[in-house]
Amino acid sequence: MPQGRVLTVPDDGLSTRQRRNRPLLVVHTGEMKGKSTAAFGTALRAWNQGWSIGVFQFVKSAKWKVGEEEAFKALHRVHVETGAGGPVEWHKMGEGWSWARKKGTEEDHAAAAAEGWAEIRRRLAAEAHDLYVLDEFTYPMKWGWVDVAEVVSVLTSRPGRQHVIITGREAAPELIEAADLVMETRKIKHPMDAGQKGQRGIEW
Amino acid sequence: MPQGRVLTVPDDGLSTRQRRNRPLLVVHTGEMKGKSTAAFGTALRAWNQGWSIGVFQFVKSAKWKVGEEEAFKALHRVHVETGAGGPVEWHKMGEGWSWARKKGTEEDHAAAAAEGWAEIRRRLAAEAHDLYVLDEFTYPMKWGWVDVAEVVSVLTSRPGRQHVIITGREAAPELIEAADLVMETRKIKHPMDAGQKGQRGIEW
Repeated sequence: MPQGRVLTVPDDGLSTRQRRNRPLLVVHTGEMKGKSTAAFGTALRAWNQGWSIGVFQFVKSAKWKVGEEEAFKALHRVHVETGAGGPVEWHKMGEGWSWARKKGTEEDHAAAAAEGWAEIRRRLAAEAHDLYVLDEFTYPMKWGWVDVAEVVSVLTSRPGRQHVIITGREAAPELIEAADLVMETRKIKHPMDAGQKGQRGIEW
Repeated sequence: MPQGRVLTVPDDGLSTRQRRNRPLLVVHTGEMKGKSTAAFGTALRAWNQGWSIGVFQFVKSAKWKVGEEEAFKALHRVHVETGAGGPVEWHKMGEGWSWARKKGTEEDHAAAAAEGWAEIRRRLAAEAHDLYVLDEFTYPMKWGWVDVAEVVSVLTSRPGRQHVIITGREAAPELIEAADLVMETRKIKHPMDAGQKGQRGIEW
């Protein structure tokens, strides 16, 4: 964890407190596992602050990553029932976005990704959440399913105090340029190298 | 996320299933934020599998990282009340370990760290948990508060199917050598570089 001393004090007319509370655009990229799990670990902190959290998973299969989804649904129910923490909305492309009338098919991932981004754009304009997790969103950007320049433009001009975390490999250079914080996960060692496949409770 | 094809199939006499379910020793190291949050993100998956989780935070201050602690305490209560997920125990060095009779003072961090490790060793021998998160445990190792060779020996000979995740900077080479999976977080960009300090909901 970085200690509390900053390297430079910018001449931006902001107080330390104002600067501290600026909303962040965060990117978790790199080849190794840890990108999504670190985003959801951060979301635990946001939950404890009572923030509204919106998770949008751009994954193809509805079966992926159910562990963190179930845990956050439980935390959402804790919020509703006791008032502790914050509300959590969880949306997955793989099963068709929950707000969409038509459920996705194998063939229209590009359309589904564009629809997901359109919804996120609407929510950003409405300041719907305090923290957005756009999980695996680098891939729709990479594959041209959404326009990188438009995404970056919407993200950098978002109103209010909305934090956004984007995860996935091969983040676009324009996204990295626009981000406040970019963390890369690097592999030093992986069990797959020794012939061991992923297992429940660890990988999902 | 690594895809399901392994690079080598070891001649270890194990079936794919046996090999898949081998317990992992995982290290999250590196200079950048994401080490602890990724460990707690993984713990969400373990919780959803109904695993018993033991968290041991080797932090000096009892005030650090309350966000994830509160969230997992809520998930533990969900488990107790509804049977969903698994039980979570959370112990912090900074406020004196919960099982210790004497509360820690500023002066005896080394003794407190050794006492924490002794308890973890007892629990590993008793197969008390399915997943252990030893948060910031690289520092007691680095500072000589626990013996690196003994720690590695105990971890590599632990019985049963107990997963262990250790986080912190500057992991000992012997620990990395012994680990099955080592993830390093690398900084590409941090708001501190632009004069912005850490903020609630993101850093704690």
